[in-house]
Amino acid sequence: MKISHIEHLGIAVKSIDEALLYYENVLGLKCYNIETVEDQKVKTAFLKVGETKIELLEPTCPESTIAKFIEKRGMGVHHVAFAVEDGVANALTEAEAQGVQLIDKAPRKGAENLNIAFLHPKTTCGVLTELCEQ
Amino acid sequence: MKISHIEHLGIAVKSIDEALLYYENVLGLKCYNIETVEDQKVKTAFLKVGETKIELLEPTCPESTIAKFIEKRGMGVHHVAFAVEDGVANALTEAEAQGVQLIDKAPRKGAENLNIAFLHPKTTCGVLTELCEQ
Repeated sequence: MKISHIEHLGIAVKSIDEALLYYENVLGLKCYNIETVEDQKVKTAFLKVGETKIELLEPTCPESTIAKFIEKRGMGVHHVAFAVEDGVANALTEAEAQGVQLIDKAPRKGAENLNIAFLHPKTTCGVLTELCEQ
Repeated sequence: MKISHIEHLGIAVKSIDEALLYYENVLGLKCYNIETVEDQKVKTAFLKVGETKIELLEPTCPESTIAKFIEKRGMGVHHVAFAVEDGVANALTEAEAQGVQLIDKAPRKGAENLNIAFLHPKTTCGVLTELCEQ
């Protein structure tokens, strides 16, 4: 697998409005987009920091996986997304051959229309890992 | 505060040897340094991914804060470190004035001899946050 950089960090928050007070006013980052992804039951806010994005994730209902994450572990880093240069499909084939458990067997469309797929944290040292392709 | 990029992600692992099998063989990243920080009771391994480093943190004894983190939450992202352009001391003064709780009241030397300071996750939306200055 050929990774160029960290595409984004997904961070679970209870409230994007409250989180932006910290990310914009204290850290000085700028939110450039807010969108709701209905089928994932999340509202997302994007900020850029260097070559990486911060994706704030707010649950839109108690059944959201983000709501369950916050209930279990509190707010914090939910996943790490790497940009792959040789395609998500190739990366998945390689990773599976090396014993990594795939959450997505094939690439699907994620936020910002990227091809994405998730690897299971059980086989990635505890980090829910996303692969992205521009 | 003026942040240029994510300097590193600190990731708590039970074993650096095992974690490197994933980070090097599956993700294709390269470890360029391993060092033990006796007073923090951790062994650290560094890999570069784009402009960001991944700092794997293995506890060297059960009293290590990393051991306690893993016991409580499992392996995973332990902290996020931002590179600040206007100095860690200035950033701390600003952050405290905005109500952020400081773990370090003044910059201290961290891994790779950087000036660093930590902000308390209680006031940073759940993310243990490090500020670094080259």
